[in-house]
Amino acid sequence: MSWNTFGRVFRFTTWGESHGPALGVVVDGCPPGINLTESDIQPFMDARKPGQSKYTTQRREADEVRILSGVFEGRTTGTPISLMIENTDQRSKDYSEVAKAYRPGHADYTYDAKYGFRDYRGGGRSSARETAARVASGAIARKVIPEVEITAWVEQIGDVAMDYDRFDKATIRTNPFFCPDAETVSRWEDLVDGARKSGSSLGALVTAQAEGVPAGWGAPIYAKLDSELAAAMMTINATKGVEIGDGFAAVTNTGETNADPMRPGADGGVAFEANHAGGIAGGISTGQPVTCRVAFKPTSSILTPVDTITSEGEATQIQTKGRHDPCVGIRGVPVVEAMMALVLADQKLLHRAQCG
Amino acid sequence: MSWNTFGRVFRFTTWGESHGPALGVVVDGCPPGINLTESDIQPFMDARKPGQSKYTTQRREADEVRILSGVFEGRTTGTPISLMIENTDQRSKDYSEVAKAYRPGHADYTYDAKYGFRDYRGGGRSSARETAARVASGAIARKVIPEVEITAWVEQIGDVAMDYDRFDKATIRTNPFFCPDAETVSRWEDLVDGARKSGSSLGALVTAQAEGVPAGWGAPIYAKLDSELAAAMMTINATKGVEIGDGFAAVTNTGETNADPMRPGADGGVAFEANHAGGIAGGISTGQPVTCRVAFKPTSSILTPVDTITSEGEATQIQTKGRHDPCVGIRGVPVVEAMMALVLADQKLLHRAQCG
Amino acid sequence: MSWNTFGRVFRFTTWGESHGPALGVVVDGCPPGINLTESDIQPFMDARKPGQSKYTTQRREADEVRILSGVFEGRTTGTPISLMIENTDQRSKDYSEVAKAYRPGHADYTYDAKYGFRDYRGGGRSSARETAARVASGAIARKVIPEVEITAWVEQIGDVAMDYDRFDKATIRTNPFFCPDAETVSRWEDLVDGARKSGSSLGALVTAQAEGVPAGWGAPIYAKLDSELAAAMMTINATKGVEIGDGFAAVTNTGETNADPMRPGADGGVAFEANHAGGIAGGISTGQPVTCRVAFKPTSSILTPVDTITSEGEATQIQTKGRHDPCVGIRGVPVVEAMMALVLADQKLLHRAQCG
Amino acid sequence: MSWNTFGRVFRFTTWGESHGPALGVVVDGCPPGINLTESDIQPFMDARKPGQSKYTTQRREADEVRILSGVFEGRTTGTPISLMIENTDQRSKDYSEVAKAYRPGHADYTYDAKYGFRDYRGGGRSSARETAARVASGAIARKVIPEVEITAWVEQIGDVAMDYDRFDKATIRTNPFFCPDAETVSRWEDLVDGARKSGSSLGALVTAQAEGVPAGWGAPIYAKLDSELAAAMMTINATKGVEIGDGFAAVTNTGETNADPMRPGADGGVAFEANHAGGIAGGISTGQPVTCRVAFKPTSSILTPVDTITSEGEATQIQTKGRHDPCVGIRGVPVVEAMMALVLADQKLLHRAQCG
Repeated sequence: MSWNTFGRVFRFTTWGESHGPALGVVVDGCPPGINLTESDIQPFMDARKPGQSKYTTQRREADEVRILSGVFEGRTTGTPISLMIENTDQRSKDYSEVAKAYRPGHADYTYDAKYGFRDYRGGGRSSARETAARVASGAIARKVIPEVEITAWVEQIGDVAMDYDRFDKATIRTNPFFCPDAETVSRWEDLVDGARKSGSSLGALVTAQAEGVPAGWGAPIYAKLDSELAAAMMTINATKGVEIGDGFAAVTNTGETNADPMRPGADGGVAFEANHAGGIAGGISTGQPVTCRVAFKPTSSILTPVDTITSEGEATQIQTKGRHDPCVGIRGVPVVEAMMALVLADQKLLHRAQCG
Repeated sequence: MSWNTFGRVFRFTTWGESHGPALGVVVDGCPPGINLTESDIQPFMDARKPGQSKYTTQRREADEVRILSGVFEGRTTGTPISLMIENTDQRSKDYSEVAKAYRPGHADYTYDAKYGFRDYRGGGRSSARETAARVASGAIARKVIPEVEITAWVEQIGDVAMDYDRFDKATIRTNPFFCPDAETVSRWEDLVDGARKSGSSLGALVTAQAEGVPAGWGAPIYAKLDSELAAAMMTINATKGVEIGDGFAAVTNTGETNADPMRPGADGGVAFEANHAGGIAGGISTGQPVTCRVAFKPTSSILTPVDTITSEGEATQIQTKGRHDPCVGIRGVPVVEAMMALVLADQKLLHRAQCG
Repeated sequence: MSWNTFGRVFRFTTWGESHGPALGVVVDGCPPGINLTESDIQPFMDARKPGQSKYTTQRREADEVRILSGVFEGRTTGTPISLMIENTDQRSKDYSEVAKAYRPGHADYTYDAKYGFRDYRGGGRSSARETAARVASGAIARKVIPEVEITAWVEQIGDVAMDYDRFDKATIRTNPFFCPDAETVSRWEDLVDGARKSGSSLGALVTAQAEGVPAGWGAPIYAKLDSELAAAMMTINATKGVEIGDGFAAVTNTGETNADPMRPGADGGVAFEANHAGGIAGGISTGQPVTCRVAFKPTSSILTPVDTITSEGEATQIQTKGRHDPCVGIRGVPVVEAMMALVLADQKLLHRAQCG
Repeated sequence: MSWNTFGRVFRFTTWGESHGPALGVVVDGCPPGINLTESDIQPFMDARKPGQSKYTTQRREADEVRILSGVFEGRTTGTPISLMIENTDQRSKDYSEVAKAYRPGHADYTYDAKYGFRDYRGGGRSSARETAARVASGAIARKVIPEVEITAWVEQIGDVAMDYDRFDKATIRTNPFFCPDAETVSRWEDLVDGARKSGSSLGALVTAQAEGVPAGWGAPIYAKLDSELAAAMMTINATKGVEIGDGFAAVTNTGETNADPMRPGADGGVAFEANHAGGIAGGISTGQPVTCRVAFKPTSSILTPVDTITSEGEATQIQTKGRHDPCVGIRGVPVVEAMMALVLADQKLLHRAQCG
């Protein structure tokens, strides 16, 4: 089945392929009366846009968003918001090789296995180009949750991790890696440039955090906030893992070292003394920052020939020459932020439905 | 919002609290004509059942499942299957302490924050007792996918990991830890018993694998097979992370070391030379084993007093005396298996809907 | 597909067959903190209960509801509410005739065509006994919308209509026909008793009204309030038509005679001068009473032999002797009320989700 | 809440307003490998298109559909199909009157009541222009159910009904009224032209029929085929009632006159001797033609001034001058057909999901 809608009450539906005329998204369930223009969305598109440095794919797309419905006199009307982004740089390259043989690690083989044939141009629907639509709708989601500030960054590329002692949020948008540690940037420049030049690729670890989420969001048991975040992140191309709070490190914690003790807060609320849980308990937000980490595999497109088969089942090899990201996780940062915003907006409205 | 249904066409809805009269599940969308009796379900219940060794909670529940609808003359009719499990050992202990103060790491505070009050007896709806209903419905899901064999095991408890060189599937059900490595069992006995005696608790890593999943299951983009698995696993109590295939290790892979090369298969199909992807590409199964790993945090219930607040916001401390699992991840194994079966059954039917 | 859940945020899932051990419903999404005991539900069950007069089926069921979850110390907790009703009078009659031959007008043939076999005892899942679960959950829905008063009645049985000049709401519950016109009661007594004695059956027209619905409920475009009501009513056994406001009579109205002019209301609100629209415009409530009418066909179970075929395709005849309602629409009244309450509760919460 | 998606597995999401730059629909879940081009869709658009006779609105729209995704080399790929129709004739008339005062019978007041403000240009989202998107997706749905032939027609306008003795399916597309009875056409010409000239409006009755639906489609209990059809039809602008088979006439049938006796069919199947049920029993198709009738109210836009209030609550009057359909039910015919196709396509896939 094709399932291109996400969300329970604040819902979005994306459409479009890498090399079609356009791609887009319909956002349904957005509250009315929110100020919204294309200029609210464009900065997020620009952050995700390809071709901005030599560390990302050289495909050049303006990624200009057009609002086609749901906004009147600068405000959302409560009706579906249709956003469209035209594809402008679908280079007329020769796809005959990709058409004939399956690129390992890509969705070529599985789309064929599922659907019987596939749009092979640039990966068709399975292309990460689809994430442009998510970033566009994520910009709307952010406006639904003005109380929340969402920030994501790259924590590690390959085996080179940033240093949290030098963490500076203001640094994130000043370099092409969304790196919050200025000293790590130059190391990543060398690393990613090396991979690019040799036609290799690298994995990455992306961390995201939402500050300002009030206690009480989350829909137990099968739409728990952590479950929704995990689902959202694992729909992003090239993701292989997700964790909340301490995540896999919690395996080696004990009940004592994993505890998040509570104290009376200054404002009559609660002051937590730790946040191993990542801001979620029992699937519901605690009021602390909600944190998650997402593992991106290295781009499957590499210059080294890899064994594969043709669609007729013959043995062959394939190497991927065209434009691609040497580290797809980098451009995953704005997408991770968007998915977090989309999940939180949905949970805010769901909470309001039941609890007023 | 309360959201207690999971699945898109093969759906189940659970209900019940730790200390209510019963708990249960309604399974809807099950194909007709499948042989089903209580005895098909009971073995899975027994695997999850508490009180079977000193390494798990001493609450004793028969966990006998009763089929109340949807089965006629031993076969599923295609109509909703209602399963009920009576609670028999809701010990009439004194809950006044839990009623007044929040147990850190539990859902006490968040349920109060969300709903204004809570059923504090044994955690109410947030108790892991709810997973009994999942295991029961998982047994039905397995019958929907007879081509698939699902196996989960504990890979690590605390900082003691099993050794895959000694992996023996047949060993898993011969010890109280679902450990596939006989030599590790005694180490875990000491480790868990130590935690139990000292009133501490331990995290665990559970690995699951589905063999026999044909290529083509999965519903891109927002019901990708990996996304559905991640969502499913992250609804289980105490889980903090999930990964598919190499998961977080893929961050340090390169495109070359992460590749899963393909060769023509003996049967005219495909033979993969590796499975870093965990059997899923582009959100669709490849035909290889589908693998995932789930991180369980240590049980939050510990004897050591932890700082907390009362529901009136006063500072206090709480220690948890009652019956509890020193390592909740162990009993997570049958639940992980059940969730995997439930996701795969749903995806099989979804695939059939669109692709015939 | 089997689809036994209704609602978008306030959802209920029913289960059970006519002759199984029990039937029930899980209500999910109910707001927390609502006072609820079995005694809030029972009066509605009693209104629908069979065997209360000679004008309905003589099956005798206590229809006692048991709350199994979701309520703590007399209040809803926000978690799923499981209700169960045991079947006590599944008379051990001989079903061999029904097992072999299809009763025209019943679901016998279609369930076989769909599922390959069927639970033939008393109609199995297709029995109107399922509506007991709806009435039970409808009682909860009413508590979610205390601002709304829902009333349904029988307007016509066969070709004998009540007279609206004698409409008296207080009369409805004083007679076995839910008739608001005392003078019509005796005519219906004769009519229905005649049908009962001759083994025939009669259709009925049921009208329902919801007063107190504020302006603004409804989810355009594919969950319009009128669409949801139509869907809800057409799931009730034996219904063949539904109309809102003037309904089919609007076909012969003109724009002038169909208008609902508006005037400033006493309270600063709106005073409508007519309600041809039945309280809904553009799929959203206007603040006027929401009205709908539902057509019930005559019970298909009649003494007169009807041509049919056996499950092997042989020609035969069938006559239905057992207990049945000579006019199934009568007992449809509490079900229509319940469905109206369930739709309105869902729409209230949906509206709150988007519009705060 | 805004809810602009319809369907359970074959789903479509519409967007757009009367006077926005465009409107469209995303169709998700369509099986792969179906031949599809714009020319498959356009004829259905043309049948619904305004401005084709003096009996419909004089707004002129090309209603040219553009396929933006989901089709590759002339075949559906199984991924979402995005269709867009540009608005070209949004006449720059003066909307100041409509902006200030509510048109009774329209959604002006209710959209304001729900959302706080509204796009008043041509009715915004509540305009029947939205149905263009349904007709476009309905054309795709038809290709999913090639075994089914769907036909709708106008049975009555105002109080002038066609005569079924003269029913000729071939006549339907030969006149501007979708009338299957040639002799009635001239009477409707006079009737509708009279209404048009006097600025009045008329209601209509539309009948639809689906031949070739096999026995077994329908998802009891809350997605019964009749319930889905009722829901679908009642989302169409200006509809006030829907009935299946004999519908409201079944109220005066008896069990004997309402029976659909069964005989062995020539082909080893079933031959029904009547179809009072409209091809549906127990919510599942019987294999007979599925029939339903839909009541359309007269267009609320009339020249006669009607009492209303301004958005500030002041008493005023409003008359509607602009372009409008004197009988909106006429152009409802292609929309009714589309909705029937969309429901049946969804139910076919749902049936396949559960029953293989």
